[in-house]
Amino acid sequence: MLRFLTAGESHGPSLTVIIEGLPSGLEIREEQIADELARRRLGFGRGPRMRFERDVLRLTGGIRHGRTLGSPVAIEILNSEWPKWEVEMSAAPGTPSKKLTAPRPGHADLAGMQKYGFDDARDVLERASARETAARVVAGSLAKSLLATIGVSVLSHVVRIGSVAAPTDKRPSVHDLETVDQSEVRCFDEAAAQLMIAEIKAAAKQGDSLGGIAEVIAYGVPVGIGSHVHWDRKLDGLLAGALMSIQAVKAVEIGDGMVQASQRGSVAHDAIVRDEGASSGGGFARRSDHAGGLEGGISSGAPIIAKVAMKPLATLNRPVLETVDLTTGESTVSFKERTDVTAVPALGVVAEAMTALVLASETQRKFGGDSVAEFSRNFRSYVEQLGAAPSARE
Amino acid sequence: MLRFLTAGESHGPSLTVIIEGLPSGLEIREEQIADELARRRLGFGRGPRMRFERDVLRLTGGIRHGRTLGSPVAIEILNSEWPKWEVEMSAAPGTPSKKLTAPRPGHADLAGMQKYGFDDARDVLERASARETAARVVAGSLAKSLLATIGVSVLSHVVRIGSVAAPTDKRPSVHDLETVDQSEVRCFDEAAAQLMIAEIKAAAKQGDSLGGIAEVIAYGVPVGIGSHVHWDRKLDGLLAGALMSIQAVKAVEIGDGMVQASQRGSVAHDAIVRDEGASSGGGFARRSDHAGGLEGGISSGAPIIAKVAMKPLATLNRPVLETVDLTTGESTVSFKERTDVTAVPALGVVAEAMTALVLASETQRKFGGDSVAEFSRNFRSYVEQLGAAPSARE
Amino acid sequence: MLRFLTAGESHGPSLTVIIEGLPSGLEIREEQIADELARRRLGFGRGPRMRFERDVLRLTGGIRHGRTLGSPVAIEILNSEWPKWEVEMSAAPGTPSKKLTAPRPGHADLAGMQKYGFDDARDVLERASARETAARVVAGSLAKSLLATIGVSVLSHVVRIGSVAAPTDKRPSVHDLETVDQSEVRCFDEAAAQLMIAEIKAAAKQGDSLGGIAEVIAYGVPVGIGSHVHWDRKLDGLLAGALMSIQAVKAVEIGDGMVQASQRGSVAHDAIVRDEGASSGGGFARRSDHAGGLEGGISSGAPIIAKVAMKPLATLNRPVLETVDLTTGESTVSFKERTDVTAVPALGVVAEAMTALVLASETQRKFGGDSVAEFSRNFRSYVEQLGAAPSARE
Amino acid sequence: MLRFLTAGESHGPSLTVIIEGLPSGLEIREEQIADELARRRLGFGRGPRMRFERDVLRLTGGIRHGRTLGSPVAIEILNSEWPKWEVEMSAAPGTPSKKLTAPRPGHADLAGMQKYGFDDARDVLERASARETAARVVAGSLAKSLLATIGVSVLSHVVRIGSVAAPTDKRPSVHDLETVDQSEVRCFDEAAAQLMIAEIKAAAKQGDSLGGIAEVIAYGVPVGIGSHVHWDRKLDGLLAGALMSIQAVKAVEIGDGMVQASQRGSVAHDAIVRDEGASSGGGFARRSDHAGGLEGGISSGAPIIAKVAMKPLATLNRPVLETVDLTTGESTVSFKERTDVTAVPALGVVAEAMTALVLASETQRKFGGDSVAEFSRNFRSYVEQLGAAPSARE
Repeated sequence: MLRFLTAGESHGPSLTVIIEGLPSGLEIREEQIADELARRRLGFGRGPRMRFERDVLRLTGGIRHGRTLGSPVAIEILNSEWPKWEVEMSAAPGTPSKKLTAPRPGHADLAGMQKYGFDDARDVLERASARETAARVVAGSLAKSLLATIGVSVLSHVVRIGSVAAPTDKRPSVHDLETVDQSEVRCFDEAAAQLMIAEIKAAAKQGDSLGGIAEVIAYGVPVGIGSHVHWDRKLDGLLAGALMSIQAVKAVEIGDGMVQASQRGSVAHDAIVRDEGASSGGGFARRSDHAGGLEGGISSGAPIIAKVAMKPLATLNRPVLETVDLTTGESTVSFKERTDVTAVPALGVVAEAMTALVLASETQRKFGGDSVAEFSRNFRSYVEQLGAAPSARE
Repeated sequence: MLRFLTAGESHGPSLTVIIEGLPSGLEIREEQIADELARRRLGFGRGPRMRFERDVLRLTGGIRHGRTLGSPVAIEILNSEWPKWEVEMSAAPGTPSKKLTAPRPGHADLAGMQKYGFDDARDVLERASARETAARVVAGSLAKSLLATIGVSVLSHVVRIGSVAAPTDKRPSVHDLETVDQSEVRCFDEAAAQLMIAEIKAAAKQGDSLGGIAEVIAYGVPVGIGSHVHWDRKLDGLLAGALMSIQAVKAVEIGDGMVQASQRGSVAHDAIVRDEGASSGGGFARRSDHAGGLEGGISSGAPIIAKVAMKPLATLNRPVLETVDLTTGESTVSFKERTDVTAVPALGVVAEAMTALVLASETQRKFGGDSVAEFSRNFRSYVEQLGAAPSARE
Repeated sequence: MLRFLTAGESHGPSLTVIIEGLPSGLEIREEQIADELARRRLGFGRGPRMRFERDVLRLTGGIRHGRTLGSPVAIEILNSEWPKWEVEMSAAPGTPSKKLTAPRPGHADLAGMQKYGFDDARDVLERASARETAARVVAGSLAKSLLATIGVSVLSHVVRIGSVAAPTDKRPSVHDLETVDQSEVRCFDEAAAQLMIAEIKAAAKQGDSLGGIAEVIAYGVPVGIGSHVHWDRKLDGLLAGALMSIQAVKAVEIGDGMVQASQRGSVAHDAIVRDEGASSGGGFARRSDHAGGLEGGISSGAPIIAKVAMKPLATLNRPVLETVDLTTGESTVSFKERTDVTAVPALGVVAEAMTALVLASETQRKFGGDSVAEFSRNFRSYVEQLGAAPSARE
Repeated sequence: MLRFLTAGESHGPSLTVIIEGLPSGLEIREEQIADELARRRLGFGRGPRMRFERDVLRLTGGIRHGRTLGSPVAIEILNSEWPKWEVEMSAAPGTPSKKLTAPRPGHADLAGMQKYGFDDARDVLERASARETAARVVAGSLAKSLLATIGVSVLSHVVRIGSVAAPTDKRPSVHDLETVDQSEVRCFDEAAAQLMIAEIKAAAKQGDSLGGIAEVIAYGVPVGIGSHVHWDRKLDGLLAGALMSIQAVKAVEIGDGMVQASQRGSVAHDAIVRDEGASSGGGFARRSDHAGGLEGGISSGAPIIAKVAMKPLATLNRPVLETVDLTTGESTVSFKERTDVTAVPALGVVAEAMTALVLASETQRKFGGDSVAEFSRNFRSYVEQLGAAPSARE
């Protein structure tokens, strides 16, 4: 039951997010949000803009004295480079100094120009840019704060960059996030990380870009989030929709999804066992985690695991992608915008945000509550009830 | 802007779907809907129930004299086995003759019981069952009829069952659907089809089940459906959400998504070329189709391609999956429900339905229109305009 | 968080409603729903169809053994006159035997024909008819059942028919509903009721119709439903939208809304007092009820009171309303459909349904819960907390 | 299909609105928005803050070089008094210098505190304040710009303040808006305006407040906006919901709604006549306007007319309203916040905004279009088609 809208162009004055539906009494610290934004800038292979700047925030609504008021929260992320773009991106009447007329393959440029009737690709790319994900990360950081009040935490790590894959059997626990963030490529396996860095260096040398895969994990999600009762209430569908909406993402996998497609039923499922200590599972646990914590569209109490695959960035430092100049109708190569070699380390952080937003919304749906006190009280009451011997319908 | 709700339990009297938002004047034939439902029953490896029955339909709202009225369409799919289940599934007060107390791994059973407070897994599985997808297929067949009025068609084929994959370079065209449907496994490659059948036979012999992958393709989607402007308007996100919501689906891939994650940017993108004849692309085409027809969340005019991976069915004809009896707290094996070996051929048909529903809704958003005449007139006017030399903002 | 879709035409085979979002474990009796439907048929001045028939129901989804499953509930209301209409309203291809080409003023006929491109007013009026409200009453009866689990009850009475108004100081309590229903015009004041009946008789004699006003009252709504934080979460806005959507309703008033517009602030507001016994107000009560139980878009714990004004029916038994025949372009009078003199007694029942649906949805939003047990447990916990000394933010 | 979220507290740094769904190419001028905001400050009986300040705007997203980009538009309204409130309303951790513990009757104060768990009424009133409507007016001014491209204009006038009502037979045309705005009370009848001013002076002298009624009129709305097919698509329901959500509004009436409730059907409806010149009616007009331009939930092409009744402001300059101090539990009178005598002139401007937002959204639903060019092209094509002889279903 969270709603959020983001606005702002990549080189506009700022990005803005309004998030509606947070309960009152949630502790919010500007530094915490800024830290999340800084995590989004992490990663070997990012340009210098990413590494040295720190986003400046303005908290303009919904928070008073460090706590939410239950009213919509508005946060603005200022663009430190705005003075350079003030004329080109002005809201006041004017004309662009230079139109970008050769849409880049792999971007929204051409389809966006055709859809919206533009002859300047900038009118599309400014909004299509992954810069927008900063606003999602802000919203996601609030969602994480809410989830923390019921013991849910969301983290991510990089499991592939280009041709280098990390071993699949090594998954960071809730305590390993700092270790992951300290890796230059946010990879939990040190050896793989080194190979990834080498891969990035090689691609950089050739002016090329790289894609990859991030895995996002939500620990502590109680059993019973999402629902099997209607297609658009299934938690896996909601997660897939949210994750696939991230710029440049082309595939989403829950648990061992792709592998399971090749397996037989007798080995692909997670045996159910009694486990008194498994509080998020209500006294039940699984012998394996093939399902990624989701069965029938509902959380099982096991960690929720999703993989998100990103295509290589379509903007290259070496102009090789063939396109057409819309003004002349002639073939040409697509123009260059300043770019990173890969954004997979950041992808994980954005995927955390989207996952947290979906989980916060769906836990609110289950537990209700207008204040954090009420939300978490209802949560505790549910967990206690689960612990009790299951008894039908009374 | 379509909305639809489905209702009904697997062994209840019927499934019902109400679909709201269809324009008036859309031609609807009961036979056409029944044919789509029959396609969902296709496939080697389905049980006898699937092969011999034909669903009986009741069209109870929104259609008069073969055309939609613009009002909500209600369609009921009767359950021919209802007399056998009338007592066990009665809506009137009563008690189940036998409770299912050992939830099956891989299903919504356990989480559903915990979430909703049941002690009989039947209270969950009746709705979680893939039988519900029949209602989606009905809704999808109406969406397909609407899309047909603007030249869009959606089809699917099976590209993997268990360990057998079809060659990736062979994709059915819009004219090949009948050929695909004639294959016992809905595979477009005859050799692969034979291997798939062998795989199914082998699994059947061992009481085991198989997963696989279906590919869904939408031809004729005009450039400009979906949008880059907000995360929840991106067509890839909407598709991923809809496809992942299908029972037993664990991964969704747009275009070459998973492969692209390993590639470099210089080879992963689809070059843009001028092509007067490419009407859905507004005079532009692509040299390749890695992106699956979607860039920046917007259709490019190229065919939209998505792969949907399904885990093997979690109900086996051989009871081996370990679970706990909730009444006794003891370990046991999960109970048997009658089951197929694999549902991948049907998966494709359901994936077509969900894809058609998303595309119908998003094309309506773009073209508006309360009647089919108005909807398609606005479509044609857009396509004509695209053909004109692109000119900004007038 | 309830969603519901209704479908079906006035003379079609049936009306169908699917209601999604009800918790599991809610007790449902077919008789109870049928009783609510019978209440909708009440009222002096209704035609014979209304008085003698009883709607036949089919409960086809979401209910097992007398309780909801948490899955969407589907209910069908069969049309006992269907055999007479089977050809004229068939879903199969065909043509109407007689087109209605002179749209009736005061109905959706003309605008609907223009919007949807019809030349037969029947294509509009079949759905625009107030018969559709039967489906809402069914949905509303489920909402009432849910509300009953937390002590909320919704009732209505007629306060005006034509020129006859009931005294404003007499409002039925929660125990008076039966008395109201026994009145032939559902008026709580016996003297006014007699005058209303006389007014109806007089109008009937002249082939004319009458409008009027019903008042709907919700008792027991706890303080804190709805919210001031966003325009579309205000309970008064949600109620107004739902009530104004009822066929022929042209005005909605909360509390003494219209009167308050003429008053001064010093007398128009409800003084706050401490009242230990006021459990729905959390220990506070009001000295008056001008605000209709709603302040700032939030329930105050006082009874929620809304008035709903209905125009006189636009179909008359005496054809006097001037219109145009769309085929000939000539002036004519609008055609007759069988009609009642007034539908104000039924209006109250429909207004109860819409009010109950809004309140059920918004209480679910606050209290969450997937089962009735969880929903009402969270409710009780909130009420207990309110009773405690208010303490900020912990 | 517009969505918008507003955020910000009355004495916070700013109000923010994000509006999503506007087509590209819409001309936007900051001055135009500022002018609308200035109109909201109009009115005899407003405090000095209203009269002398001009809101300072920041356009931070979705607009480039004077035109929309199709992306979400973000606009911030800065609070010129922020320096005075910076500490009291800081987002950073801290404590209020003085808690407001005696909730004011007639406001969200008490219910809001109970719902959200606050002990300081400021945590509620800052958001519940009518200051928030400034953000709606900004959103509404964009909606008006969009509507202007298809010839729709929305205006309002005051028809009652306290006991003074303007004559009902005098309604400003589309050219009279300036005249209305020049009236100190935004009343179109000069004599009534003088009486209203006298009424305000009298109330002011006694430290009292006044309510009243504004009428909003939309000219040029084409026939066929809204729909009869589903309750939540009826234009009157959507309008009523939007208008009732305005702070202090307690009643909404479409056309002659309240009067119609007392009338007979033979006189209450608007006769249909052929009128070649009536382009918004598609060649049809009405002999009267009792229905307020809406029949069956659909616009008829006649002007849409709604009345909005506002209770007197609940904050008085003379503290008389009885309440309870939540800290002591003792009876007291509610605290004073600086206040106006009446806000009815402003109410009209806010009602215009909400009406424009509903109409913009619903016209977009009908006409689709991603650019203004496409939206208005589809509109023109519809109007042309209407002019043609109505012919069914081709």
